[in-house]
Amino acid sequence: MTKVPASPLYYEDIEVGRVFRTGSIEVTAEEITTFAARYDPQPFHLDVTAGTEHRVFGGLVASGWLTAGLAMRLMILSDFKLGGGAVGLGIDSLRWPRPVRPGDRLSSVIEIKGKRLSESKPGYGIMRIDTTTTNQNGEVVLTKSAHVLVPLRPL
Amino acid sequence: MTKVPASPLYYEDIEVGRVFRTGSIEVTAEEITTFAARYDPQPFHLDVTAGTEHRVFGGLVASGWLTAGLAMRLMILSDFKLGGGAVGLGIDSLRWPRPVRPGDRLSSVIEIKGKRLSESKPGYGIMRIDTTTTNQNGEVVLTKSAHVLVPLRPL
Repeated sequence: MTKVPASPLYYEDIEVGRVFRTGSIEVTAEEITTFAARYDPQPFHLDVTAGTEHRVFGGLVASGWLTAGLAMRLMILSDFKLGGGAVGLGIDSLRWPRPVRPGDRLSSVIEIKGKRLSESKPGYGIMRIDTTTTNQNGEVVLTKSAHVLVPLRPL
Repeated sequence: MTKVPASPLYYEDIEVGRVFRTGSIEVTAEEITTFAARYDPQPFHLDVTAGTEHRVFGGLVASGWLTAGLAMRLMILSDFKLGGGAVGLGIDSLRWPRPVRPGDRLSSVIEIKGKRLSESKPGYGIMRIDTTTTNQNGEVVLTKSAHVLVPLRPL
């Protein structure tokens, strides 16, 4: 069965309180260590043995920035598709309540928490978008509260 | 001249107000598009032409999550080396005041803004660490305020 791609959404289409559920993605040891080698080269992100010896983690865990990147991928590939794209203005809160380990399967729930017109950019609104990413056991591994620039519907 | 690696720092070694300056790193178009293909697959992060047509950016720009990953790399490779590693608890503010474009060279200033002992994890403190990342023109491309778990000096 082919999934019909969602039409792009504009500011006017999205009400506060709307919830989007993303697909899921599995995190492999290879992606954890490859990402870490470039962006977060610390022993507990690079090597199973070094991770095991770490007092906090007790095993190889993903960089929080990899988890954040995967949450972004899940959002971009979800039905929450903005016309003109999602331009992040900033994050007010980003938390990693639990580590992500090899073999974990992540998915997110995205909720629109607020919207207002942009004062500085005509043709745009700003939405507060909260994301909760969980693993296959329903345990929360990331929460994020973002402000995103969202285009108005073209005239 | 070989640079002597910095000794690892522990909670007790780092006073509030201390500032660390990182090295620098150049951002290439290839890294921008490769990162985006996996973590932020939007036209203005993937393709020069699509970026040029974008109303906000007017050219290929790095995903904000790539900029955050590069800021992390710069910190890990700096003299701000924590014994036991830097375990991020969360981010209270993350902003991207200006886009990062191919050829930009980034570096960061890291400032210790606060420290306290952890109540839940014996042997650890928690530091508030602010990062400002600028491009080769001194323009700020990222600001970040993080809480990081920092090991106490082993007995």
